[in-house]
Amino acid sequence: MITSSANSQIKQIRKLRDRKERHASGTFYAEGLRIVAEATLSGAKIETAVVSPELLTSDYGQQLVRDLVARRVPILEVSAEVFKGLALKENPQGLSAVIQQQWHALEDVQPTVGSFWVALDAVADPGNLGTILRTNDAVGGKGVILLDYSTDPYDPTAMRASMGAVFSQHLIRATFSDFAAWKRRTGIQVVGTSGEASLDYQEMSYPDPLVILMGSERQGLQEHHWQICDSLVRIPMVGRSDSLNLAVATAVTLYEVFNQRRAKDVSQSSASHPSKGIIKQ
Amino acid sequence: MITSSANSQIKQIRKLRDRKERHASGTFYAEGLRIVAEATLSGAKIETAVVSPELLTSDYGQQLVRDLVARRVPILEVSAEVFKGLALKENPQGLSAVIQQQWHALEDVQPTVGSFWVALDAVADPGNLGTILRTNDAVGGKGVILLDYSTDPYDPTAMRASMGAVFSQHLIRATFSDFAAWKRRTGIQVVGTSGEASLDYQEMSYPDPLVILMGSERQGLQEHHWQICDSLVRIPMVGRSDSLNLAVATAVTLYEVFNQRRAKDVSQSSASHPSKGIIKQ
Repeated sequence: MITSSANSQIKQIRKLRDRKERHASGTFYAEGLRIVAEATLSGAKIETAVVSPELLTSDYGQQLVRDLVARRVPILEVSAEVFKGLALKENPQGLSAVIQQQWHALEDVQPTVGSFWVALDAVADPGNLGTILRTNDAVGGKGVILLDYSTDPYDPTAMRASMGAVFSQHLIRATFSDFAAWKRRTGIQVVGTSGEASLDYQEMSYPDPLVILMGSERQGLQEHHWQICDSLVRIPMVGRSDSLNLAVATAVTLYEVFNQRRAKDVSQSSASHPSKGIIKQ
Repeated sequence: MITSSANSQIKQIRKLRDRKERHASGTFYAEGLRIVAEATLSGAKIETAVVSPELLTSDYGQQLVRDLVARRVPILEVSAEVFKGLALKENPQGLSAVIQQQWHALEDVQPTVGSFWVALDAVADPGNLGTILRTNDAVGGKGVILLDYSTDPYDPTAMRASMGAVFSQHLIRATFSDFAAWKRRTGIQVVGTSGEASLDYQEMSYPDPLVILMGSERQGLQEHHWQICDSLVRIPMVGRSDSLNLAVATAVTLYEVFNQRRAKDVSQSSASHPSKGIIKQ
């Protein structure tokens, strides 16, 4: 059992708080029973599990460690003190893990009917990014394309907010020009949202497959992004402010896409089963 | 100019980081040019403005201070060091204020046609609360009713996330039983959202006036809340998870209410002005 925070492995793990280290190593540090369980279930590659037997008191947690051992995941036993030194949250549960990041390459993405993505330009707030991953998972979106200087989905705040969607959503990093080239090559339709657009987001019939392009928290969609968009839509507002939180604006748009596809599915299945009754077209 | 953080007024202001102190004094501490400007514009009662001339370098900030002086707001001049000691953010802009909280009493709320509220049971995350205030403002909602042990809208994180809506939204605190009594007395319709409801949130025709009741982040809507609801609706999801972020779920529901009312307004104005063309009923 490791009892010193000066241990080289522990020092290496602590460095994963830093985005540069996460990037260089291609790994991240995830803490807590729920998130380690989600990582395991999703098939993420766990490099090392960190366990403090003293803190890991729940049956569920102990079963989780036995599962990890059965999967031949290396276990690093540490003292409660060392564990707390690594922990980001108060009252840590005694289980965490170093996990491999999983990225997909934009050039490998072949848009197929029924699929949609969210592209985020320079999203800055990890909580927003995590929440967008969670919402996109909820509506059946494939993944998130992070353009240019976006925050890190493996930031602890983003991971927590994603409620496990960081493991199920396809994560893609790209420059805007790579994104533009991919759009031209595949012909995928891109719909941007902007307060300056004239088309109401509900008046749009969303194409399939589709990318929804969202601007950053500070600046919204920039003019140089407009040219890549096949359509621009506006979410109406009547209050004092002219903007919504980014995760909220993304969710409102995604639910419109989702609702249109649901309505279409129902109307198609109703056409083949007319006994289901009158359904709005 | 105050140059010591041990000054009694400065110590008193620093105490406003604590919710209990905010509650006891009926005030809160707001920091930054934008939020002080919003407070001023909204007519909030500013008890004291705190200014560090050394940090307040922008013309806009200096104009803001002249406006406050013209409104006879007491100005507390402090050194940059003292200001930084009070500040919650890095790189403070040199202007902050102690402002009176503004609460409305539930018994004074007379629901009128066209109005709607959000009621939140035990919302825990100040960022979620602030985001909900911002969204409710955007769709024309009147205010937010905080039930039982909810977090504080005057928490700095909530205030920041509200983007000024904390000043425009009506804020109401109530116990659940007071809320239930108010509902019985006024006859206002309450629609709750729950993953266990059978009615799709888009199949509901939302009454007017209306309260949307949302459960807490951890527990969702509790069974003892169901009895107060005239209807329960469910936001559909197809992903791994069975829940959305609270601010996202609230926004998705609020936009459905807003969209239904917009459609109704359009169809009514189109009935009286048929030349406007064919509009979806």
